Amino acid sequence: MKLTLLSDYSLRMLMHLSVNQGALVTIAATAARYDVSKNHLMKVAHQLGQQGYIETVRGRSGGLRLARLPEDIILGHVVRYMEQSSVLVECFPGGKGGCLITKECRLKSALHEAQEAFFTCLDGYTLADLVDGNSGLEPLLSEAG
Amino acid sequence: MKLTLLSDYSLRMLMHLSVNQGALVTIAATAARYDVSKNHLMKVAHQLGQQGYIETVRGRSGGLRLARLPEDIILGHVVRYMEQSSVLVECFPGGKGGCLITKECRLKSALHEAQEAFFTCLDGYTLADLVDGNSGLEPLLSEAG
Repeated sequence: MKLTLLSDYSLRMLMHLSVNQGALVTIAATAARYDVSKNHLMKVAHQLGQQGYIETVRGRSGGLRLARLPEDIILGHVVRYMEQSSVLVECFPGGKGGCLITKECRLKSALHEAQEAFFTCLDGYTLADLVDGNSGLEPLLSEAG
Repeated sequence: MKLTLLSDYSLRMLMHLSVNQGALVTIAATAARYDVSKNHLMKVAHQLGQQGYIETVRGRSGGLRLARLPEDIILGHVVRYMEQSSVLVECFPGGKGGCLITKECRLKSALHEAQEAFFTCLDGYTLADLVDGNSGLEPLLSEAG
């Protein structure tokens, strides 16, 4: 059971922006911080922007910042959105399909219910829950000074 | 969010054996039925056997059969076992690790809780729930006649 890199990196980016609220953070800085692909992060930033979680300030000293308060960013919503393109098993919408028993298979609905339970659990957490009062996280992600 | 083929194929194999209870089913028959790789199914059969879900009868007219009643095969247990080698995100046990913030990250426990919610949901279903009284499934998977 594997989440996409889109989910993983989007949550990391949101944490990075959250720790650095009030400042602008470049994609290059996030990529360097986590030692991950800048190209992947560009896609992540685009999607987070489309959903209104972050905004881009253009220009030489531009960068990204949160467009909502951390307590208003619900992890389940972010992950649900980012996992849209990923299918749990091939018979799910968007999958390659072709399983002989798809029409008569009860597993689909059980798996769908389980996936919903996964997302619903994450609906109980916001970005603020990850960051607020997390004094160990701040020095690891702060771009200040 | 993606399950491994191990989970997918193991549940398909269990359904195939369940519909054909009382008979022996070869791996080749299951592979042909679902049009999937025989090699993958051999690995799946090995693991299902190790967990005591199925047993192998050797010999020319040998094959596989369920070693437990369908109502005693809990889907959550099967999937939990098959997903052991798959990591939700890289900081999970067995993952490549290396994320800068792993030690201070609260996301890990939220994701772990969500994954448990997924498995716990599937603990509410047995193989019997997929097969019993499913008159549409039987003709698709029956090897009789």
